Amino acid sequence: MPAPDRRAALRALLADREVDALLVTDLVNVRYLTGFTGSNAALLVHVDGDAASRFCTDGRYRAQAAVQVPDLERVEDRASALALAAAAAVDRLGFESDAVTVDAHAALDAAAQGVALVRTPGLVQGLRAVKDPDEVEALRVACAVADTALAGLLADGGLVPGRTERDVALDLETRMRRLGAQGPAFDTIVAAGPHSAVPHHRPTDAGLRAGDLVKMDFGALVDGYHSDITRTVVLGPAADWQRELHALVAAAQRAGRAALAPGADVVAVDAAARDVCVDAGRGEEFLHGLGHGIGLQIHEAPALARTGTGTLAAGMAVTVEPGVYLEGRGGVRIEDTLVVRDGEPELLTRTTRELLEV
Amino acid sequence: MPAPDRRAALRALLADREVDALLVTDLVNVRYLTGFTGSNAALLVHVDGDAASRFCTDGRYRAQAAVQVPDLERVEDRASALALAAAAAVDRLGFESDAVTVDAHAALDAAAQGVALVRTPGLVQGLRAVKDPDEVEALRVACAVADTALAGLLADGGLVPGRTERDVALDLETRMRRLGAQGPAFDTIVAAGPHSAVPHHRPTDAGLRAGDLVKMDFGALVDGYHSDITRTVVLGPAADWQRELHALVAAAQRAGRAALAPGADVVAVDAAARDVCVDAGRGEEFLHGLGHGIGLQIHEAPALARTGTGTLAAGMAVTVEPGVYLEGRGGVRIEDTLVVRDGEPELLTRTTRELLEV
Repeated sequence: MPAPDRRAALRALLADREVDALLVTDLVNVRYLTGFTGSNAALLVHVDGDAASRFCTDGRYRAQAAVQVPDLERVEDRASALALAAAAAVDRLGFESDAVTVDAHAALDAAAQGVALVRTPGLVQGLRAVKDPDEVEALRVACAVADTALAGLLADGGLVPGRTERDVALDLETRMRRLGAQGPAFDTIVAAGPHSAVPHHRPTDAGLRAGDLVKMDFGALVDGYHSDITRTVVLGPAADWQRELHALVAAAQRAGRAALAPGADVVAVDAAARDVCVDAGRGEEFLHGLGHGIGLQIHEAPALARTGTGTLAAGMAVTVEPGVYLEGRGGVRIEDTLVVRDGEPELLTRTTRELLEV
Repeated sequence: MPAPDRRAALRALLADREVDALLVTDLVNVRYLTGFTGSNAALLVHVDGDAASRFCTDGRYRAQAAVQVPDLERVEDRASALALAAAAAVDRLGFESDAVTVDAHAALDAAAQGVALVRTPGLVQGLRAVKDPDEVEALRVACAVADTALAGLLADGGLVPGRTERDVALDLETRMRRLGAQGPAFDTIVAAGPHSAVPHHRPTDAGLRAGDLVKMDFGALVDGYHSDITRTVVLGPAADWQRELHALVAAAQRAGRAALAPGADVVAVDAAARDVCVDAGRGEEFLHGLGHGIGLQIHEAPALARTGTGTLAAGMAVTVEPGVYLEGRGGVRIEDTLVVRDGEPELLTRTTRELLEV
């Protein structure tokens, strides 16, 4: 969806909030609404349309802004938010109260004399939760990069006893870079043996050993969009307990994916997967939420968790990532990135979910 | 300096602000004051001492918190800041108004019934600006990793015509990882030919060409501490204009380094380097500030810039990075990470600053 259409969608929300304009200062939200990728910017979206709206960045980004934001009047000022607030000429100005600090708010209030600053959190995040076709395509590419990196690692014998967790993490990241990623989508997790029971283990210099569960949770950042996948494999033939653990988590993951549908309550989606673990007596070992929205940020709305709120809509991109962790022994997590559709959800990560014995 | 000593130093500042305690919610500041590296935490530093202070994180980090924060009473709650505020039992509670959002502040205010929330920005950042010996050693290691990666790149013939900017960036990052870095300290910049005139160019698939200026701005993240170095080399024999440009920036950089001294005004330090460029008629092509503090964050206090405020103190770690950019032709930046000392500043990055023709 072109940026002007996104701004039009935002305007429809502003009317409900009874503000004349929204001051967007969160840089991810600015990027979503304009395409601008620099490190200093603010955007004033006026209900009267783009002609009344303004974009501001500083002189370092003059050329870049002209290319990326050709369709809005551009203001040049290092204090981008203050400059737009001071010149807003509106009665009621919405601001992102979930992103603006108390000190920044005080400065805005001083700059925007006579303007009522109105708390309007989460408006752009709400729009961002539902991906348009261009965004889904960007996510698809980011997911394909992660899938391809993992396939290459496996094909090239990258998982062998003696290699360290750090070796494997660097190998995956290097492959993703060579496939076009700007970098990893987040700190790559490679966790072998008992380490696999730690949900967010950081790779160490511990060597992989025959018989280990090896959990790999990683993703690629491509053109601003993130992918996120987890696979847990066994180094050599799986023991019965490893096979059973993997089968349990795979069943929970299938149940979670099957629950993804427009209108589904996020708590119910989490429960669909969690109940499979609870029924197997492993509910206490499922230590985290089921998944999260993903897009321009690795974690964004909606949260698929017991503490989440709201319902799904077609076009939302989310992860489904149940895990069961047996402290001191090992853990299994299986995670995909998907798009909610009217029928079956669309899987963007496509590596097999069967237990791999490598 | 052990974490308890850092908390004691903070307490001395709290007395001046007339608060009974400070609620620390910025995770970098929490790490500085406790050593905790998880993704959810808050810390209440009470003026009465550690016995009256509290640390809070959630259940995911129970084991980690016990190891990293053994010396404070630990509370377990997902809403870590709210939990500490609700149980604070003080009259006046300072909070980090430069980090707490307007919405988070409203939630704190509701949780801390009858407590006056007092804006106390920048207190921990002020302490962090002056590094203790352990921190300088961590920075020294991070700088040595960057130096060694660059030396390896040069020794192995990593800068040759036909290699792309992205190839070189990935090569540097991979070398840093193999040397023990968790990752790059920031997005690596490799900019060849006319691209070198763009201060924050992102690496492309453009191939290096004989005669190019190649600007490399990169650093390593090691144990939470960042390094930052820039060198600009020529691929083959330098042309006269490249040699002159490099000599000018090198002279500016020497002047900037020479101005680093306890008590020096940060604006004067910036001017010491900038004036060299202005005198050469290149003031307009020096497009950014001279440098920045560096430590647990890649950019932290103090800012060495025309818009900066304050004076230097012994133990501050800063970058000195003048650059002159000739649009469409090429640019040169030379950057080091240093520690301000009573005598000469200590150079932590040690790669030669002579013009290299590779």
